[in-house]
Amino acid sequence: MKLWQKNSDALKEVEQFTVGNDRQMDLYLAPFDVLGSLAHITMLASVNLLEHNEAVLLKKELYHIYHKISNGQFHLADDVEDIHSQIELLLTEQLGDIGKKIHSARSRNDQVLVDIKLFLRHEITQTTYAIEKFFNLLQQLSEQYKNYLLPGYTHLQLAMPSSFGLWFGAYAESLVDDCITLQAAYKVVNKNPLGSAAGYGSSFPINRTLTTQLLGFDDLNYNVVYAQMGRGKAERITAQALANFADTLAKLSMDMCLYLNQNFGFVSFPAQLTTGSSIMPHKKNPDVFELIRSHCNRIKALPNEIMLQTTNLPSGYHRDLQLLKEHLFPAFTTLRQCLEMAGLMLENIEIKENIIQDEKYRYLFSVEEVNKLVLQGIPFRDAYKQIGLQIESGNFTYSTDLHHTHEGSIGNLCNQQIQQQMQSTLKGFEFNKAATAIEQLLASAKNE
Amino acid sequence: MKLWQKNSDALKEVEQFTVGNDRQMDLYLAPFDVLGSLAHITMLASVNLLEHNEAVLLKKELYHIYHKISNGQFHLADDVEDIHSQIELLLTEQLGDIGKKIHSARSRNDQVLVDIKLFLRHEITQTTYAIEKFFNLLQQLSEQYKNYLLPGYTHLQLAMPSSFGLWFGAYAESLVDDCITLQAAYKVVNKNPLGSAAGYGSSFPINRTLTTQLLGFDDLNYNVVYAQMGRGKAERITAQALANFADTLAKLSMDMCLYLNQNFGFVSFPAQLTTGSSIMPHKKNPDVFELIRSHCNRIKALPNEIMLQTTNLPSGYHRDLQLLKEHLFPAFTTLRQCLEMAGLMLENIEIKENIIQDEKYRYLFSVEEVNKLVLQGIPFRDAYKQIGLQIESGNFTYSTDLHHTHEGSIGNLCNQQIQQQMQSTLKGFEFNKAATAIEQLLASAKNE
Amino acid sequence: MKLWQKNSDALKEVEQFTVGNDRQMDLYLAPFDVLGSLAHITMLASVNLLEHNEAVLLKKELYHIYHKISNGQFHLADDVEDIHSQIELLLTEQLGDIGKKIHSARSRNDQVLVDIKLFLRHEITQTTYAIEKFFNLLQQLSEQYKNYLLPGYTHLQLAMPSSFGLWFGAYAESLVDDCITLQAAYKVVNKNPLGSAAGYGSSFPINRTLTTQLLGFDDLNYNVVYAQMGRGKAERITAQALANFADTLAKLSMDMCLYLNQNFGFVSFPAQLTTGSSIMPHKKNPDVFELIRSHCNRIKALPNEIMLQTTNLPSGYHRDLQLLKEHLFPAFTTLRQCLEMAGLMLENIEIKENIIQDEKYRYLFSVEEVNKLVLQGIPFRDAYKQIGLQIESGNFTYSTDLHHTHEGSIGNLCNQQIQQQMQSTLKGFEFNKAATAIEQLLASAKNE
Amino acid sequence: MKLWQKNSDALKEVEQFTVGNDRQMDLYLAPFDVLGSLAHITMLASVNLLEHNEAVLLKKELYHIYHKISNGQFHLADDVEDIHSQIELLLTEQLGDIGKKIHSARSRNDQVLVDIKLFLRHEITQTTYAIEKFFNLLQQLSEQYKNYLLPGYTHLQLAMPSSFGLWFGAYAESLVDDCITLQAAYKVVNKNPLGSAAGYGSSFPINRTLTTQLLGFDDLNYNVVYAQMGRGKAERITAQALANFADTLAKLSMDMCLYLNQNFGFVSFPAQLTTGSSIMPHKKNPDVFELIRSHCNRIKALPNEIMLQTTNLPSGYHRDLQLLKEHLFPAFTTLRQCLEMAGLMLENIEIKENIIQDEKYRYLFSVEEVNKLVLQGIPFRDAYKQIGLQIESGNFTYSTDLHHTHEGSIGNLCNQQIQQQMQSTLKGFEFNKAATAIEQLLASAKNE
Repeated sequence: MKLWQKNSDALKEVEQFTVGNDRQMDLYLAPFDVLGSLAHITMLASVNLLEHNEAVLLKKELYHIYHKISNGQFHLADDVEDIHSQIELLLTEQLGDIGKKIHSARSRNDQVLVDIKLFLRHEITQTTYAIEKFFNLLQQLSEQYKNYLLPGYTHLQLAMPSSFGLWFGAYAESLVDDCITLQAAYKVVNKNPLGSAAGYGSSFPINRTLTTQLLGFDDLNYNVVYAQMGRGKAERITAQALANFADTLAKLSMDMCLYLNQNFGFVSFPAQLTTGSSIMPHKKNPDVFELIRSHCNRIKALPNEIMLQTTNLPSGYHRDLQLLKEHLFPAFTTLRQCLEMAGLMLENIEIKENIIQDEKYRYLFSVEEVNKLVLQGIPFRDAYKQIGLQIESGNFTYSTDLHHTHEGSIGNLCNQQIQQQMQSTLKGFEFNKAATAIEQLLASAKNE
Repeated sequence: MKLWQKNSDALKEVEQFTVGNDRQMDLYLAPFDVLGSLAHITMLASVNLLEHNEAVLLKKELYHIYHKISNGQFHLADDVEDIHSQIELLLTEQLGDIGKKIHSARSRNDQVLVDIKLFLRHEITQTTYAIEKFFNLLQQLSEQYKNYLLPGYTHLQLAMPSSFGLWFGAYAESLVDDCITLQAAYKVVNKNPLGSAAGYGSSFPINRTLTTQLLGFDDLNYNVVYAQMGRGKAERITAQALANFADTLAKLSMDMCLYLNQNFGFVSFPAQLTTGSSIMPHKKNPDVFELIRSHCNRIKALPNEIMLQTTNLPSGYHRDLQLLKEHLFPAFTTLRQCLEMAGLMLENIEIKENIIQDEKYRYLFSVEEVNKLVLQGIPFRDAYKQIGLQIESGNFTYSTDLHHTHEGSIGNLCNQQIQQQMQSTLKGFEFNKAATAIEQLLASAKNE
Repeated sequence: MKLWQKNSDALKEVEQFTVGNDRQMDLYLAPFDVLGSLAHITMLASVNLLEHNEAVLLKKELYHIYHKISNGQFHLADDVEDIHSQIELLLTEQLGDIGKKIHSARSRNDQVLVDIKLFLRHEITQTTYAIEKFFNLLQQLSEQYKNYLLPGYTHLQLAMPSSFGLWFGAYAESLVDDCITLQAAYKVVNKNPLGSAAGYGSSFPINRTLTTQLLGFDDLNYNVVYAQMGRGKAERITAQALANFADTLAKLSMDMCLYLNQNFGFVSFPAQLTTGSSIMPHKKNPDVFELIRSHCNRIKALPNEIMLQTTNLPSGYHRDLQLLKEHLFPAFTTLRQCLEMAGLMLENIEIKENIIQDEKYRYLFSVEEVNKLVLQGIPFRDAYKQIGLQIESGNFTYSTDLHHTHEGSIGNLCNQQIQQQMQSTLKGFEFNKAATAIEQLLASAKNE
Repeated sequence: MKLWQKNSDALKEVEQFTVGNDRQMDLYLAPFDVLGSLAHITMLASVNLLEHNEAVLLKKELYHIYHKISNGQFHLADDVEDIHSQIELLLTEQLGDIGKKIHSARSRNDQVLVDIKLFLRHEITQTTYAIEKFFNLLQQLSEQYKNYLLPGYTHLQLAMPSSFGLWFGAYAESLVDDCITLQAAYKVVNKNPLGSAAGYGSSFPINRTLTTQLLGFDDLNYNVVYAQMGRGKAERITAQALANFADTLAKLSMDMCLYLNQNFGFVSFPAQLTTGSSIMPHKKNPDVFELIRSHCNRIKALPNEIMLQTTNLPSGYHRDLQLLKEHLFPAFTTLRQCLEMAGLMLENIEIKENIIQDEKYRYLFSVEEVNKLVLQGIPFRDAYKQIGLQIESGNFTYSTDLHHTHEGSIGNLCNQQIQQQMQSTLKGFEFNKAATAIEQLLASAKNE
């Protein structure tokens, strides 16, 4: 089609293509867009770029919009391009020209930047709470099943005795390290890009330190060129941290599918949590764990996807960045659903007793018996030879009673120390600081 | 070939295939293997699993081996399988059977685990120092060139005035956020897996807290199953952090290639740093930046590669993990080389003066002129219209003299605050703690 | 929540989680599910597993359902789990128990497998047509602009004269190679998995060769274990081919963004196809190309995502595979939209004339001048020296008139030969075979 | 360091960094560089850009160099930059100035391009032969073990009877589809870029069709800009195909590790092929399969790595491309080693007899028994109910004697048809065409 003949049609196609799914993605950002505007307005008034009474009116109205969003009463009208336009429309409907003043000393670029940062901060916070809950469940199960022995494998070959206490506890501890990486993402995210305008700042005498405080950010993205460069980067670093949790959950799911397999048969789940068949009464398909595994393995692909979409883009804004929202934004909900479902499954797990008593697992204890002799003073080589001969001649005797005492072993799980690691990591997030600031910002808007 | 006929041949093929390049990779681990053994021996003696005088002899000998390694005098003999065997061989050559006692209460699995952790810790430390140096260079250049204006682009279209002060400063600030993720990796890495044996602990009454202190680790990987699960995970999380630096460096290189392109022509480099042609005197090929970009984009692929190699492996050791060393271990050196080469280039950069005076960049200042009117009290719409009419009629006048004052803008780069961010981040690493412990461990071995 | 107390609630959560977005994804498969059933029924009747009159009734009804789907009148009821159940429900509503007979000698696994294969085959076909159209446009533009010279860059440095004829023609030829990989995907996809049941076949004396013919497949996935293994693999191989096209389109978009940049300024687009600003009249943001680039770079991430979701899964069906649909199925539409939008842009491109006449591009011709002398019989070294001296002394003279005659050069684009390559590749798809079979299958159902 | 003071040092650093490992990588290309030069010289003489007697001398000398390379007598001197320079050096040592004439009408860019294409073509050819061998082994084992039943799993849950005949046969058939994608890569690779010079052609009246024939290429990369664009693309498409084989091999290895696990215990291997322990006599660590899995999963990461290194590079050569060699070139050897080692293992596999007779597998046959009743005319529902009741009451009886007759089922493996698929695919490569051309080219050089 030649545009010169029929301009308007073409425009519509371009518009549809460039908007794409972005309107749906924008809904994730709605409450944060209001918060960003509240801080911006307060700051503008403080530096006399807005009159006090204008600021009062704008903040009151924005508070109402925030309330609407919280109650699910906020919608994007069909002919409105994006969330930012929709909010401005609501403001101008109520306040006329004053509504447009919120754009002074701000560009769409830094507005979106601050929305995304606030959204990511919020989602990281919610995700951390969900992880803590799952962590506590794993620790509780570790204590509950600390005496349930389990074959330990290396090379997927029977190797040494393990326990469900160790198994549950290991995944709990894994979450501690994952949280360390999520905290790094939180720190990268928790810096204020507002005021960077289109990525090159402006001549307006704005006070970026004030909006930083109002929004409860820990610090500024100072350099305005870097503030813009943070788009895509904050997303990637957050996705890396999500990928770490996803990896822990996926691995746990793989273990569960294996342990539920009839050749292992270490665990079971109530029929309501699995799918089965009345003519194959043994069949307990672990669909939930398979889907957790698949969701999580997909989340693990996210950092690479973001990289491919941003690699070799020169500095400065590019429209490419718009599409980063589409897979990252829903990933938080997905990960939390996976945590909830894994929690539901584990709360209802049935663990087989006396697994290890089965004779086929006897050689798991050969290293134990050698070590016992060594501890009795017999040189390792002789001890090894002695047990080897016992096994060869079919006279191997062993006890399934283990006395492992060192830190983190079957008999000394150190779950308390791991809980301390977790608590110490959680403290480092300082979620309250952000929460308090947001409460105050909203309270101040409400009370105007 | 049927094995039943000719066993020995087959064995050789299997051996060659399973060893692969691992002997070369092992050389990276040599000094750390000695350190791990020193701590292990000290601990064994402390819990009476080794006699005091045996420990003294072993430690002295290990100290000599460490010295050899430091001096480049250590080699893997052709018929020795790996670094661990080579060190044991040297010990038994000197001390006879005592040499074999260092294996008590330890397995090859946790020995390699602790080697890798110590190696990663060391490499992260060295990389951080290299980054700090490059950060300081960027900050210095930012100050030096803060008055050199540059067109700022959005959508790769001319948008607003920027400056080399902003440009250099942005990449410096980017490194701060990258360091936050590297610190997370450091924290994950800086935990002690030694004593987890084959991933299921042992009945030996070892003291893992002691080896943790001796090796200067911040904490333990308590749960022995988790300690083993850390293999692959520590590597992945470290690779993610390297990828973040790599992304910053690759983006900087892309900008440089663009700015050096004759259509931009913002910067130049001395002939010794570029490749050219005497019949194309304009040609200054930025090979160094192209190769930095390519190296860095490859490093960005590493986390995904590690994921593919470890995805859906059940818990417990698998030989698959051996191959993770091959691309990760050299990546540290590569990244540091890239930092050095980027440093060399930037130390010699020539920046064109008065770029922005060119008339073709005049509309960069249209937003500036609108904002000036707004700041004089003219409503935004009227100001916008006024400048629009000037442009339309060809009467647009503007000044290239900018007065940006807010935090992080052209006129207020906040490099000092960014330096503080960096210093505060660097403090969080607490490298000294590890360094002091290692020094003491070596000193104690020497003095025995 | 403990399931033992409140079973039913939990069940609902499990159901919601396991169904996820799969109902929406199923709609992509609806028409193909009907086609698979038509072939299956025909076959069942042929081997007397279904009575002739039952088959007639079922096929008639399925034809109506197919018609409904084509007209957009088919919907999944809220309480129906998936497309397969919905179709069965419609059948039983009309035909009672006969409706359930279509499941004989078939499992949900091979039913979904054949649906996906038919869907992929259809989408590859549609995508190929869209590519051919875009290819023809590129070729036409190559001819149209064959005399428009353009600087050619190496290392992003000015190097040699190029032309828009070459530039457009290069991307056309790129599509030929991409089509070769898409054809490989088509061949992998175009094999019949129906009859493999749950991946282990069955004792029913079915005729898989017949359903292969009825559905127009080129061949069978013979081995039933392999037929199941094809799930995930057909998707991955198809995604690889899509990634190849995506890479071509993304590269073209990058070039366009660069050429539209004011420092290059080689092309322009009508205002209706770009976004701009009345106070920055130069600004023509190439949003369409930026979004094509971003969409395409995301498609390039798909094969890796599929790999991560399927890596290290043992043979046999896993529920993980369900989620592969979510990003792959819409990717076809996205890619075709990108092709259409790129087509719209290129149809309206304005190419600057006489770019190369600008003096700043003069050294592009230095190699030309050297070569001319060489062709006149002057040894290369002397020719090189002569031109070098001219340049050094400022006396370099050159002509922008080029006489490149070899295959594929500026003066001999060989677009006809490239068109032949494309036509020869397209012939290899044999789309008609499949189309004819499907038409006959539907016609036979209608006429029953 | 400031370059202005000490130029030469810096130069060395730049040189070292830019050369990197490229000299080692170049050795892979040595024989192909000679072949490309032979064709180029022959063509130059044919269009009178070289005198006949010069061509004769050059070709003779190149033949000697080719011979040296074949015999491993060719080395890169320490001070020679690359393979191309080394070959030129050898020529000028023998022939003086004539040696330099081979560069007429050629650039380093198209020289490397054609080298890589010839290398890839050769490696694909060798890899295909290795695959065919492994395919034949799998087919032979499928026939040999066609009566060895095996539990078939879905969701990793016991589902239906399978067989080793099916299992081996499935992986054979998988290789057929993988070969289809490798053939696509071969077709993309097997086109001639020589003559495209630096990516923009030249004014020399060269005959690219002639070099295409001389080198046995199937066709030309016509468009010179596209010929250059093929760098990175040919590599990526080849890597995609390698990834497909790698995925097949990795999945087979995963199955093997599982089947060798003692809870499954379906297969065994002689001690010489596994690693074990005398006190854990059950332990047969499948190191070979674990390393195959890990190597292959790394190869699966290659296409993505190449994408990250080339994404968003504008058209035209960039030095970034140099690094693509480092991981791709050795991947062929690695893949072939994996095929050989997998072959060695499978040639020596011991398969447990009567696996399926174990009572724990009895419900595998429940679907069988239902289907049998259905085939006797009992409606499916009644049959299902009848078997369900038998199971519930503990009276389930079944036969392990299966009568699966349809295509690709346990009783009708269709290995012959799959062999035909493979042969038909192999024919499509037309390796002979290339081989014959290369032989003639060498023969003509020798006989000059």
